[in-house]
Amino acid sequence: MKKFQPMEKHNFRILYGVHPVWEALRAQSSRARELWLARDDRDARIREILKLAQDHGVRMVRMDPQEMRRRVSGNHQGVALRMDCPAPASLEDLLGEIGGKAPCVLVVLDHLQDPQNLGAILRSAACLGASGILIPERRSVRLSPGAVKASAGASERVPVLSVVNLGQALRDLKERGFWVYGADRAGQSLAGHEFAQPLVLVIGSEESGLRPSTRSLCDALVAIPQSETGVSSLNASAATAVILYEIFRQSGKKA
Amino acid sequence: MKKFQPMEKHNFRILYGVHPVWEALRAQSSRARELWLARDDRDARIREILKLAQDHGVRMVRMDPQEMRRRVSGNHQGVALRMDCPAPASLEDLLGEIGGKAPCVLVVLDHLQDPQNLGAILRSAACLGASGILIPERRSVRLSPGAVKASAGASERVPVLSVVNLGQALRDLKERGFWVYGADRAGQSLAGHEFAQPLVLVIGSEESGLRPSTRSLCDALVAIPQSETGVSSLNASAATAVILYEIFRQSGKKA
Repeated sequence: MKKFQPMEKHNFRILYGVHPVWEALRAQSSRARELWLARDDRDARIREILKLAQDHGVRMVRMDPQEMRRRVSGNHQGVALRMDCPAPASLEDLLGEIGGKAPCVLVVLDHLQDPQNLGAILRSAACLGASGILIPERRSVRLSPGAVKASAGASERVPVLSVVNLGQALRDLKERGFWVYGADRAGQSLAGHEFAQPLVLVIGSEESGLRPSTRSLCDALVAIPQSETGVSSLNASAATAVILYEIFRQSGKKA
Repeated sequence: MKKFQPMEKHNFRILYGVHPVWEALRAQSSRARELWLARDDRDARIREILKLAQDHGVRMVRMDPQEMRRRVSGNHQGVALRMDCPAPASLEDLLGEIGGKAPCVLVVLDHLQDPQNLGAILRSAACLGASGILIPERRSVRLSPGAVKASAGASERVPVLSVVNLGQALRDLKERGFWVYGADRAGQSLAGHEFAQPLVLVIGSEESGLRPSTRSLCDALVAIPQSETGVSSLNASAATAVILYEIFRQSGKKA
């Protein structure tokens, strides 16, 4: 039952921007491989970054701004970090990486499109106790440099598994005892809903929500209660944060 | 005590439902701009609405029910009205517009920078029952076209007041009986906190959170409970959504 394929063939990730690089060097120095610098080092935070890189034996590569622009398309602020990053290659891998934690929350993104949303969802997952994210391999946002930057370091902490067939992944997770909850306006009110774990939270795309085939795989649908104002819905990453908060709040109560 | 200055933007608001539309056409016809109709006009009250619209030169737009649903998510009964809604020019204006609703939630953005975040916060405010947003006039995000787009229509429903002096605005609101809550990692856990209304929720900037001068004006600080992962915090708009949800959840319980 090898239904999942590895994500990217290259197993490294480029992080950029002063704050994300600084944070990664502090938290994940063992995976840092190269520090790329295309600015002077008068700034105190840059000096701190250089010191961290030196302490951890990270190779420093100076380059001119053009070269940096060629390698990194986002707002790099003159500094980037190449990190080793073994993405989970299969659901087995991912569950193995998460370890034996029985209460477990995974987030499945059903064809989300916006890298800013993926970044914000990674941040929310890291803060609110979700252990991993699954995305479909096609017609979906990927863990692009923009998403990594928007995640403010969270992409280094929350594994993202890319799967060929999202429906099959959900069925496999159900077989392993996961409850599958879909975020959907037609669902039961989130506030009154009691979540069982381990669980998968499925978030639909920005434009059209959950696909019918995904919806039919959900054990329950939950909706964020709303005031009557005529605005259709929350932003996808705001909705994810709210639902993850409610799950986290409930599990905190039980603990 | 003219401490607030007008914003340059004109807002509008969508009113819907047979009775509200009929009433608005009688009482505030000068601000009515478009009547949206997605039903037949056999009903006597609908015919009256059409007559009022015609008398006052309000443009009539027929649309199919799907289009109406796309524009208006509430129970619109096939009729809606687009009204001019000049941006509030002062705190008095804003509070007047909100009307005599005693339970009231305002959001103050303490030098937020990202238009995407402002847009997402407007959406969350509209969905989760916040009545208005205050932003400082300088060194802050503005209601730019990007923010309006990211708000997915919510900028037409939630008034945004730009103030010269945020501290003074908070002091004025406190004098009027508002409780001021600041979002801050050093605060009490959100989950256990009981919110009193009317209230102001203050959100700090993406980079540095609440300014000390703002923090000192808060009656209480609240923090979103977090798992221990080393990621510093939620994205500002995700945090706002979570706190507004918790406030909304609590007020729903009391009602």
